Amino acid sequence: LKDSEYKIGIDIGGTNTSLGLVDTNGRCVKKMDFSTSANKNIEEFISKLVASIHEICMIDAHEVQPVGIGIAAPAAQYRAGLIQNPANLLWGTINIADLLKRQVDLPITVINDSNAVALGELKYGLARGMKNFVAITLGTGLGAGVVVNGELVNGANGFAGELGHIIVEPNGRKCGCKRRGCVETYVSATGVCRTAFELMANELDPSKLRGWTYSNLTAKAVYDLAVEGDTLARKTFEITGEIFGKMLASTAVSFDPEAIILSGGLVHAGEFLLKPTLKSFNENVIGSLRGKVAIFPSQFSDSEAAILGASSMIDIAEAVSTE
Amino acid sequence: LKDSEYKIGIDIGGTNTSLGLVDTNGRCVKKMDFSTSANKNIEEFISKLVASIHEICMIDAHEVQPVGIGIAAPAAQYRAGLIQNPANLLWGTINIADLLKRQVDLPITVINDSNAVALGELKYGLARGMKNFVAITLGTGLGAGVVVNGELVNGANGFAGELGHIIVEPNGRKCGCKRRGCVETYVSATGVCRTAFELMANELDPSKLRGWTYSNLTAKAVYDLAVEGDTLARKTFEITGEIFGKMLASTAVSFDPEAIILSGGLVHAGEFLLKPTLKSFNENVIGSLRGKVAIFPSQFSDSEAAILGASSMIDIAEAVSTE
Repeated sequence: LKDSEYKIGIDIGGTNTSLGLVDTNGRCVKKMDFSTSANKNIEEFISKLVASIHEICMIDAHEVQPVGIGIAAPAAQYRAGLIQNPANLLWGTINIADLLKRQVDLPITVINDSNAVALGELKYGLARGMKNFVAITLGTGLGAGVVVNGELVNGANGFAGELGHIIVEPNGRKCGCKRRGCVETYVSATGVCRTAFELMANELDPSKLRGWTYSNLTAKAVYDLAVEGDTLARKTFEITGEIFGKMLASTAVSFDPEAIILSGGLVHAGEFLLKPTLKSFNENVIGSLRGKVAIFPSQFSDSEAAILGASSMIDIAEAVSTE
Repeated sequence: LKDSEYKIGIDIGGTNTSLGLVDTNGRCVKKMDFSTSANKNIEEFISKLVASIHEICMIDAHEVQPVGIGIAAPAAQYRAGLIQNPANLLWGTINIADLLKRQVDLPITVINDSNAVALGELKYGLARGMKNFVAITLGTGLGAGVVVNGELVNGANGFAGELGHIIVEPNGRKCGCKRRGCVETYVSATGVCRTAFELMANELDPSKLRGWTYSNLTAKAVYDLAVEGDTLARKTFEITGEIFGKMLASTAVSFDPEAIILSGGLVHAGEFLLKPTLKSFNENVIGSLRGKVAIFPSQFSDSEAAILGASSMIDIAEAVSTE
C-alpha cells in the first residue's frame, strides 16, 4: 500500500484513547490504546497522543504518512474542532484540532463519538446500504448517532440524536445533565448500578449485591452475579431491558429506522440485556412498525466503529475546509 | 394568471375536507370545505369531492385547468397513494388516488397530513429557509412532520415523525394504538378531556366541569371554562402544557430543530396552553439547547398549511412517476 492510502482514526474516551491505522478498504490494520485518565492535564495528553500517532505509523521500520486524522470524542463539535467540557473528560473545553495541529502536520477533523460510531456502521459495518438507522452506544451514558435519508443528523446546533436525554420517567432519576428522568439514568452502565440499588431497597431477596457499596459497584459486577444466578442481578437487567425496549419503541416512531445497532460495554451483558429489551420493544412498538425494525449488536469490537467513522470524515473535512 | 399556474391542495380530515386553489406563489386564492363525516361511504365522498374540485376551479365563469392535485390525509402512504385504515375516517383502507383518477384527469399525489403541514411551513410558512424543524399539529391526536437537513423525514416505512406515539408515561393512559402512555393521550383535544376527568377525580375544587359527561366534553368546553376562570379547567391546561413541554424537550434532543411550529385546534387555547408549555420546556430542555429552539404557533389558519404542503407535492410526484 502507498502511504496515501492510510488514515488515522482516534477515539478519545473517558477511560481509554484508542488509535487505529485504517486502510482504504476501511480495515483497521494496526490498533493501539493508552489511558486517557492517566493524563490529567491536556499538555501531557497531547504529548502522549503525538507519540502514539508516530508509533502507529511505523510499519516495517518505515513511518507511513497518512492522509489525515479523524478524531472522535464526547461532546465534540464538528465545525469548531472543539471538545466542549464533556462530563467524563477532565480538561474542560479544548480545541483538540488546534492543539494537535501544532505538532502534527496533517489535516485533522473532529466528530462527536456517537456520530462517529454511526458513520463507522454506515460506511463499513452492518448499516452499509441503509438510508435510515440509529446506532446506540451503551457505556457510562447512552449515546446515539442517527442517519436519516442517508445522512447523519446533526441538527441546528450539532446536538441532534442525543437520545440519552430523552425523558422516560417524569420526575425520575437525577441526570448528570441536571434534569430528571433521562433514559441514560436507567439504561447505561451507571443506570444498571442505580437500578441494582433501587431493587435492593425495594425487594427482600438475598443477594451478593448487598455486599457492595454504591461507589464500588460496576455493571460488570452485576453481570457477573447475573451469570452466577443471583436473582436481583438478573432482575436488574430485566428492568433495564424493559425501560430500554420502551425507549426504543419511541425511537422507532421518531425515526422509523431500518435497524437499531447496539454497541458499548453494556452490550457485553448479552442475552441478559438483549432478551428483555427485545421483549419490551415488541410489546411497546406501534403496530405499524412491528417486525420492521431490526435490533442487533454491532459486529465491531469496542472503539473500532468510532475509529473507522472518525477516519472516514477526512475527505469530508477537506470539502468543508474549502467551503 | 394562466391555468397552468394553479394547483389544487386538499386536506381530508375526520370532520371536514378542505380544498384550496393555490397559485404559483403559494397563495390560496380560493378555499372551500365540506363535511367529511356526512359522507359515510366512499362513493358518496368521491362524488362530493369531484363536484367540489370542479366548483373550486370556476373563476369568473371560466373553469381553470390546474396542473395537478395534492391530497393530505391521515395515515396516507405517499408511494402507494393509499389512505390506510385511519382511526378517524370511516372507509377502511382506500386508494384515494386511484378512485379520484377515474373521474378527474389530472396528476394526483397523496401525502400524510402531518408531513403536508411541515411541507407547507417549509415552502410557504414560518419555516422558510430552515434546514431542521418540527411541525406539530394538536387535533384529536398529536401529529408531527419533521424536516432534517432540509428534507422531510419519512423513515424506512413512512412512519417517521409519528411523535404522538412517543411514550411519556410508563404504564400511562391507554392509547388508540393499543399501547399505554403515548403523549397524544395527554397532549391533544382528547387528552385535555381525559386530564379534566382525572383532575375531577383527584381534586375537590368545585367546577362546572363536574356537570359534563365524558362523552360530551370537548377541549373547547374546557377552554371556555378556563376563560371564565374555572380552577380545574385552568389546571387542566397547566398539566397538559407541563407534559407537552417535557415531550418537546425530548423532541429537542432527538432532532435539535431550529423551531417547533404548533398548529391544530388545540393551539386556539392560546396562552392557557402555550405559557405552561414554554415554562415546562425551558425547565426540561437540556442545557446545551436552552434558548436555541424557538416554539411558536403557525401563521396559517386551520388546514391552510396542509393544503399548501399537499399542493407543493405535485412537481415532486411527477419526478417520482418517472423514477
